[in-house]
Order: sequence, then C-alpha cells, then structure tokens
Amino acid sequence: MIDYTPTYTDQYQLTMAQVYFNKGMKDETAIFDYFFRKLPFDSGYAIFAGLEDLLGALENFQFNEKDIRYLKKQNFDEEFIDYLRSFEFSGNIYAAREGDLVFPNRPVISVEAPLPKAQILETMVLNILNYQSLIATKASRMRLAAGEKKLVDFGLRRAPGAGGYSASRAAVIGGFDATSNVRSGRDYDISISGTMAHSFIQRYDDELTAFRDFAEVRADDCVLLVDTYDTLKSGVPNAITVGKEMKERGEKMKGIRLDSGDLAWLAKKSRIMLDDAGLDYVKIAASNQLDEHVIKSLLDHDAPIDLFGVGTSLVTGRPDAALDGVYKLAYANGGPRLKLSENVEKINLPGKKQVYRLKKNGEFYGGDVVAFADEDKNDVQRMHHPSDSTKSLGLEKFSKEPLLEKIVAKGRRLSEKRDITDIAQYSRQRLKKLPDEFKRFENPHIYKIGLSKSLKNERDQLVDKYKEKVGSAS
Amino acid sequence: MIDYTPTYTDQYQLTMAQVYFNKGMKDETAIFDYFFRKLPFDSGYAIFAGLEDLLGALENFQFNEKDIRYLKKQNFDEEFIDYLRSFEFSGNIYAAREGDLVFPNRPVISVEAPLPKAQILETMVLNILNYQSLIATKASRMRLAAGEKKLVDFGLRRAPGAGGYSASRAAVIGGFDATSNVRSGRDYDISISGTMAHSFIQRYDDELTAFRDFAEVRADDCVLLVDTYDTLKSGVPNAITVGKEMKERGEKMKGIRLDSGDLAWLAKKSRIMLDDAGLDYVKIAASNQLDEHVIKSLLDHDAPIDLFGVGTSLVTGRPDAALDGVYKLAYANGGPRLKLSENVEKINLPGKKQVYRLKKNGEFYGGDVVAFADEDKNDVQRMHHPSDSTKSLGLEKFSKEPLLEKIVAKGRRLSEKRDITDIAQYSRQRLKKLPDEFKRFENPHIYKIGLSKSLKNERDQLVDKYKEKVGSAS
Repeated sequence: MIDYTPTYTDQYQLTMAQVYFNKGMKDETAIFDYFFRKLPFDSGYAIFAGLEDLLGALENFQFNEKDIRYLKKQNFDEEFIDYLRSFEFSGNIYAAREGDLVFPNRPVISVEAPLPKAQILETMVLNILNYQSLIATKASRMRLAAGEKKLVDFGLRRAPGAGGYSASRAAVIGGFDATSNVRSGRDYDISISGTMAHSFIQRYDDELTAFRDFAEVRADDCVLLVDTYDTLKSGVPNAITVGKEMKERGEKMKGIRLDSGDLAWLAKKSRIMLDDAGLDYVKIAASNQLDEHVIKSLLDHDAPIDLFGVGTSLVTGRPDAALDGVYKLAYANGGPRLKLSENVEKINLPGKKQVYRLKKNGEFYGGDVVAFADEDKNDVQRMHHPSDSTKSLGLEKFSKEPLLEKIVAKGRRLSEKRDITDIAQYSRQRLKKLPDEFKRFENPHIYKIGLSKSLKNERDQLVDKYKEKVGSAS
Repeated sequence: MIDYTPTYTDQYQLTMAQVYFNKGMKDETAIFDYFFRKLPFDSGYAIFAGLEDLLGALENFQFNEKDIRYLKKQNFDEEFIDYLRSFEFSGNIYAAREGDLVFPNRPVISVEAPLPKAQILETMVLNILNYQSLIATKASRMRLAAGEKKLVDFGLRRAPGAGGYSASRAAVIGGFDATSNVRSGRDYDISISGTMAHSFIQRYDDELTAFRDFAEVRADDCVLLVDTYDTLKSGVPNAITVGKEMKERGEKMKGIRLDSGDLAWLAKKSRIMLDDAGLDYVKIAASNQLDEHVIKSLLDHDAPIDLFGVGTSLVTGRPDAALDGVYKLAYANGGPRLKLSENVEKINLPGKKQVYRLKKNGEFYGGDVVAFADEDKNDVQRMHHPSDSTKSLGLEKFSKEPLLEKIVAKGRRLSEKRDITDIAQYSRQRLKKLPDEFKRFENPHIYKIGLSKSLKNERDQLVDKYKEKVGSAS
C-alpha cells in the first residue's frame, strides 16, 4: 500500500549524500548498525518486526519521475541528480531474524553499502523497524497476559494514520490472532474478524430485531454487542433469545461482546445466564480500553472472557509511542568509526560485527555477546561488560548461536520471503526459550549484553584516540 | 501515497453493511457525526486537521479488483459483492473548515449518506481525522511556546510507520514552518529542511574537514552539527573557522545545530562565540527530545535559539498518542437516533445539526452552541448546558457564526481544494481570535459547549423513551 522510494527519507540524508558524491566517496563502503537503547514498556525483551516490509521496500528502490522532478526544484545540482537517477540499493544486509527477541545496544541489522546509499536508507530503516518492533513488543506482552485466549486488533480507528496498516501486521507477529483491519488482512494474509457496532443496534427501534437481522444474515460469525441499552437486563437476554432461535435452526451463535462497564463482573453474570440457557458454547468477547495490565487483571480475577479486542493501547504503543532505535555509522573510510558521547553507554560499537546468543540446554541463558564478524566464534571465550571493566563472564558453559544472517547480498535477496505465520510462529518459539524471569511485567531480569575482548579493546582504543583529538582541539 | 479504497476499514463495517443491504436498507438515509470527547494534552482547544486528505480519499472511492477478489474469499455473498462493485460515495458531508479550532462533544463533521455507505466510511474518517487533529494540536502548542522562532518537524524516523507522512502535514497546519520529510514535502508542498547527522562527521578523521566539505557543497544552506566531539571546545570553534572562510568567499553560513547537553547554556555560549567572531548572522538550531514544555522553558530562560527541530513528541502526540474521536449515528430509519449511556456526557446528540461559534467584536467568546440544522439561527437565543439543567446562557450579546459547511453534495465536492498554506494561515487567524486564557498550558479556561432548547428537549425526550424501553425489557 505504501509507495516506498528513496524520497521516503529526511532531507539531510540527501544533502549528505550529495557531499559524499561530490567529494569522491560515492563508492566507499560504509556499515551502519540499527539498534535501540532502551526497552519499551519496562519490558524484559523486545520483538524484532518490520524486516520483511523493509526488504520489500528495497526491491525496486528507485527514484521515480515525480521524485526527480521534485528534487530538481530543491537545490541539488545536475550531476548529483543524474547519480540519483541510477540509484538502487546495491549493498548487503545482515539481520536478526524477524520475530526474534532483541535487546538494547547490540546490532539488530547492519547495512553494508556504498556510503551515500547506506546513508539515504537511514530514515526508512528507522521508520519501519522502530514502529513495528514497538507494536510487536506491545502485542507480545498482551499475549503473555492473555495466555491461550484470543486476541484481536481493533486499532485502525485510533491508529496513527496509515501507520495502522503495519500495526496490524506487527500485532500478529507479537502474538495476536486476527485483526479488524480489512486492508491489512488483504495484503498481509492476516485473519480478519469483527462483531457489530452500537450504531447497528441504534438503527433499529429495538435491540431484539437488530440481533435477529444480524443473526439471519451472518449466521456463521454472529457475535452480538450487548451493552447498547443495558447489558444484563436487555443485551444478554435478547442475545439468549436469538441464540436459542439459532439453535432451533441448527445454527450456533458464536458470541457476545461486552464493551463497557465492569467487564469481569459482567462476563461472570453473562456466562451464567448463557450457560443456564443451554448456550455454553457461546463465547464472550470484551473490549474497551484494554492493555496487557487490564487483561492480566481480568484473567487474574477469573473473568470468563474468551476473546479480547484491543485498540488504542496496541496501535499507539502506549505509554511509549516510539522505540528509540538509531542507525549509527560503524565503518567507513577503510576503518571502524565511533560516535563519542559523554555517556559511555551511548558510544556505538565500531566495525563489522556478529551477535551470538548464549544458550544452555537449548534454553536462552539471558545474554548476547557482540564480537567482530571475523572473529572465530570459538575464540570468544569471555564476554565483557560494555562500560564496567570489572565485570566479565566466562562462556565455556554456553553454546553460541549467531544471530545476524546475511539476507541481502549486492542488493539481491538471498533467502525466501518469510510469511507472517512463519514469523509469528518463530517469535513464539523464541519467546518460549526465554526464562520466565525476563517476562515479568514488574522489574524483569535484565538481559546481559557483553562484548568480546577484541571488540572492547578496539572500542576503548578508539575512544582514547578521539578524546586526544578533542583535547588537542581546545 | 496511500491507496485509499473502501477496504481501508474494519471488517464489521462490511458485515453490518451486508445486513443493511440484505434487509432493504441500502438506500435509507443516515447521518453520522464525527466528534471527540476529550481535549488532548490538557489543552484548551484542538485544531481540526485531515479534512483535505479525507476528501481526497473519497474521490474515486471504489473497491478495486484486488479488494473484490479478497472479499469473495471472506464469507460475503454474491449479491452483496455485486453491490460493492458499484459502490461509490454518493452522500453529503458537512464539515468544520480544516484548521479551525474544535472542541469536545460537538460535531466536527457530519456524513449524510445511504446507511451502508456512511457506515463503511467510519473507520477511515476516524483514522485520518483523529491522528491529524492530534498532531496539529500538538504542533499548535509548540507554536504557542516558540513564538516567532522557526519550528521544523524532524519526526519521520520515530513516526508510527507511514503515519509520519500525514504527521508532517498536520504539523504545518498546527504552525510548523518546515519538515525534514522529503516525501511529505513532495506531495503536500511543504518546505523541506535539514542539517547534517553525526554520521557525516564520523565519516571524517576530523571535524573541520567534514565542515569544510559540507560548506563547499551546500554553501546555500550550510547548518553545521557541532556536538559530535565537544560543542564548545571543538564544534563551535571549527564552525567559526568555516564560517569565516565562507565569509571571505562572500558566502553566508546559515547556522549551527546543538543536539545534546544543556541546550540553553550551550546556545548562550555559542551565541557569544559566534558574535565575537563577526558571525552574528549565523543562526542557532536546537534539537533533542523537545516538546512544547521544553521549548517554553528554553525561551523563558532566554536561550538564543532561532530554530527548534522536533521529532518524537510531535509525531507520536506524546503523551496522548490518540484522539478519542468517535463516529456516532444521529439519524436513520426516518428519525433521530440516540446512543444511550449511563454517563449523560457520553450520550450523543440526535438529528441533523449545525454548530454556531459565539463571537463578540470579532473575538471568540469561548463557546459553541449546537442546534438542529433547520432551526433559524435567530431563534437560538439561549444555550443550555448539555447535562446540568440549572445552567444556561443568554446569547443576545453574541453574533453566531455557523461552522459546518456543506462541502460534498451527492458525492461531489462543492468548494475548491484548499492548499496547506491556506489551511495553516486560517488556523493561525482563528487561534488569534481565541482569548489567551484558553491557550494556557496549565489549567486553561474551559470552552463551553451548549445546546439549543429544541435540541436539548429532543435529546431528553429520546433518553426517556429509550430508558422506558430498557425498563420494559427487564
């Protein structure tokens, strides 16, 4: 649905690219790492999402005529515009597998490409991956809270404009079962689902006739909204009347939906009324300002709710609304590059890297180690705390799974496109391997990120070198 | 950029539409009102944005072949699919002018159309208007804080996916001057602007060479990022060197950008250094986690900052992230319709309505009155509190400006397309007419929304009628 071309970017990417072009750096190899610094929602992990959309955007990633016409009016010179005309992404991408668990301050993807091309990509990489990873992580937390209950995305109406399109995708990766969003259902092959709105009931002079009409036309997926007038005095009794009529016709009413009031209490009362009427197969759906905490509380109090419809808090990633992902230069001009910062935590990791996940008996231990890509994995025998040099951990007891896979080589995709069901399934498998301590909502265990000795040494030396330079500038 | 067709909707809109179609209501006239219930950000007003995008989406609003193929697999019957094939929006739209100030619990737009068509529109109306109005309101608050300083949207990288596209548009309506977002610049005719990233400096072995290269290639819009190593010891001195070199060549360096640290302090120090070097025309730009409160604080402390670049808090609408706009049935089946609620504030206003803004000497008084569309404006002599029947206000002293304009008739647009500069200018004019008490960040005046006597009576009678019905159902 979204028309990705290289003008899906910030203006400064183009001005910087122009300098690189004019100054003879257009073919110089650069590596940028995408990573984030802080887990959203005080979560113990994040879910990586958006990769397939990013790779899709990179197929035929060229400036079109409309782009070129526009850029000609924007103070770019002829020669540079000519270069842009032949622009296509010709680099390599090393990426975590979509759906995997990811953690702060380690590369999630690395882009290795001619400098101006890698630079222009920055905004789109951040735009796609930051949002989808945020929403997949939020969805995953709701899945943890909901156990085996159904989760449906109802968010499009409160979604940030066209962002809602990819939110529905990310929700499924994080563990949702379906969406109300028809467009995303069409394009991403997600199950679509829905019930009815209050307006439908309002159209009629009485609730019962509205229910009957709906049940007749939509006998296969009849879920009746029962709170328009009074849930227990009107909605549920009328739904029971219609449910029994359907039963007599050999049809099965699918469910009722509660959308206001005390959901736990109403669900319990409704369950009893339905069961007493011989409609124990009729499910109870609930919606209205849900999030992972409300879902957990409802189920902790044994609310007999079978399906949760979640809108605003899912698609906005409330209360965080943005993942703080960044895209930092790690290699250029023939060597590793560093971004200095007063805060050692904010200094990036130089060079081309690989990330290994520590495992023991197939389970995740709770740590990833970052090393240079050309280090032999077997030589990485200890991981070092990124800033506290008194802390390190021997790795003898662990197996090390490499996490960054080369998926694009010279602009061409190497592996098959992965469909959303695969990605969601993979995500669930990975989450299973993570010990429960990391999945707590309150003060989860902190996942360790460590550096190999060589990487730490190189980074520390570069820091010293840069600091000397600043000293001499003063 | 976004491919709006009627599958940009929730699944239940289609199932409800199918019932309406099968049950002979396909040509019945319905009216839905779009309104919201709570002002975001504890603001005293909101800015209405998104209308032109909505109207654009409604041109050629038809199911395409891909949509139809998909829906055929989704349990909709042949006849209904045939109806969808010929679907186009054939109704009327009455709307507030885009950019106007809007307030809770009064219609912002009303859609009058055949029932299934008006119903299917719901999700798209909410999706477009909720998000853009939220972001325009956020932007407007930053404009209030920034006074005459420049405001530039840097948000695309942290934006909610493709939502960033319309966020940049909404930002301009709310008072921003420019965006870094090239795509939105191209399509919405917004000025684009940018500086350079840390990666550009990192590419070089020294900051001064990086600055020189940039100044040479981008002499016309040279803004140098000065915090990569050390703002006052390295960045500003190097920028001054380059600024003087440019001056000798007859060029003018445009600015420097601060992106970390104590922005007020660094701006003051940098200003002095630049002025002392004869570069008093060089502007100071600042970015890094800004919002209206930080901008206000910086300027309250006399930080000599000329331009603010705002990202995350703008495009996510932090801390609110969603406007709670709804789309409620007000008329169908030949008469006014009501949505009951325990909470009288949540009961909608029935029937076809007009909204009048109260004015005195050309200024806004601070109240809108909602009346039936067919009431003579001169007969509306008093406005009544929606729920507290002891409260009312005589309107003799005020002129009444009608706010809802018929802009679409039988699916055809009546007025000219308004461009973004017009809309932004209109918004600014309207905001000027609002007394300052409504623009305070802390506890602003509460804008009054009142009902005409006829409307209040009709609503109260309908409430009684519906309550009786519920009573009889128990």
